[in-house]
Amino acid sequence: MKRSEIDSARKRAAQMLSKAEIAITPDELANMEVIDLGLGEFDRTGLTLVVYINNDSYCAKEIVMFPGQTCPEHRHPPVSGGPGKLETFRCRWGKVWIYSEGEPTPSPKARLPQGSESCYTVFHEVELNPGEQCTIPSDTLHWFQAGPEGVIVSEFSTTSRDESDIFTDPRIERLPTIEEG
Amino acid sequence: MKRSEIDSARKRAAQMLSKAEIAITPDELANMEVIDLGLGEFDRTGLTLVVYINNDSYCAKEIVMFPGQTCPEHRHPPVSGGPGKLETFRCRWGKVWIYSEGEPTPSPKARLPQGSESCYTVFHEVELNPGEQCTIPSDTLHWFQAGPEGVIVSEFSTTSRDESDIFTDPRIERLPTIEEG
Repeated sequence: MKRSEIDSARKRAAQMLSKAEIAITPDELANMEVIDLGLGEFDRTGLTLVVYINNDSYCAKEIVMFPGQTCPEHRHPPVSGGPGKLETFRCRWGKVWIYSEGEPTPSPKARLPQGSESCYTVFHEVELNPGEQCTIPSDTLHWFQAGPEGVIVSEFSTTSRDESDIFTDPRIERLPTIEEG
Repeated sequence: MKRSEIDSARKRAAQMLSKAEIAITPDELANMEVIDLGLGEFDRTGLTLVVYINNDSYCAKEIVMFPGQTCPEHRHPPVSGGPGKLETFRCRWGKVWIYSEGEPTPSPKARLPQGSESCYTVFHEVELNPGEQCTIPSDTLHWFQAGPEGVIVSEFSTTSRDESDIFTDPRIERLPTIEEG
């Protein structure tokens, strides 16, 4: 992503956090992770993270997603002899649809990102509104999409090891590359 | 504690959460843990918890404390061969002073609960305002007190095993007893 796109996403995410009355420090603002997964269509596929803590035992972060943005399908496989990352998503503001393995929901509410339809294979839907949460077992395929006003989700989990994530879309690069501009 | 005191604390905590724009479900409201640690002076010493998740790996909760309330000094010892609970406190609303082992702060801002002064032995102060956080290592003595308007703190940690907590005050019972009334 271009530096200017990252700056603009951080600014927009900060505005959403402020609207939701979620305080972050200037350092956290400056270090927000803006992620387009290498697809170059951040408005459609991407997310912005404020990582509060990530140690050898647990991780907590705030996920900010703009209206209709999708975090694409992936799973957290076992790493270094331990089980894969276990995650609890708690909606703080807005709405999110989370899809994971299980009975497919007949008419899922999210719209698949155009051109990437074949990279979405699980359709068991859970809708989260503020105060609602769900836990995704380790090594389980899942993806999620923000509702029409965007969403802020607190993620509580075991240690994040993003480089180990396995995405269904073979074009995806989880770790960011930054271009000047 | 009496059932009526618990109900009244839940109601008051729910009002604070609502003021801070933190949404909880009706089930979470009905199951809020109101804790006076057996001291019978809840206004002075106690706290109210909304436990979001507590599994074998991690725990996340919201701690609500009324103006000036104190969570008394304790530590989380090693349990079943693992290290004691590791905790990150993140202030969401209001102000909290957290005290732990280390260089004592010359003029600590909290006032010790009257009659229990001898049960407070660590005085390294960290003040947290919204968006600020700190992490307390396992098996380390700590205690904290809400500022003049109360405080809401998100706690991210390893598994909570409250029955193992060791309090400096020998009168304290961590697990609640409920009387009718």
